[in-house]
Amino acid sequence: MPRIVVDVMPKPEILDPQGKAIVGALPRLGFDAFSGVRQGKRFELAVDGEVTEAVLAQAREAAETLLSNPVIEDVVNVQVVED
Amino acid sequence: MPRIVVDVMPKPEILDPQGKAIVGALPRLGFDAFSGVRQGKRFELAVDGEVTEAVLAQAREAAETLLSNPVIEDVVNVQVVED
Repeated sequence: MPRIVVDVMPKPEILDPQGKAIVGALPRLGFDAFSGVRQGKRFELAVDGEVTEAVLAQAREAAETLLSNPVIEDVVNVQVVED
Repeated sequence: MPRIVVDVMPKPEILDPQGKAIVGALPRLGFDAFSGVRQGKRFELAVDGEVTEAVLAQAREAAETLLSNPVIEDVVNVQVVED
């Protein structure tokens, strides 16, 4: 069954307290290779049948309206994944 | 600056109440193409300098220990993204 993956990230200018907490915890656990972390969301939408252009358009619109808050978040990726 | 993207999803057998809420809201908003939704997390780890095999190994270990809860979540993707 094909799925559509939607990735949503906080806008660069928006503070990301979860990311800040993770970047603080990493060196305490011995992970010293990373200078910053941002945490966003990943959605997998299951599609019955074929992913047509209309289905993909619905996914893009749902991503911008329901799955993300366009004031503080960017939809960075809408992508079909075949299993 | 290269980034490492880590994707974490709830395990298939784990109930995902956020996904359930979204799948209920979609048809009310006119999106009728989707039969299921799962919500997970996406992390972007910023790396200063080059992404070596050692850095990638750190990212994989951090993904399994700090960024996900292996009891209820799967790390589905650890991937380098060049800007």
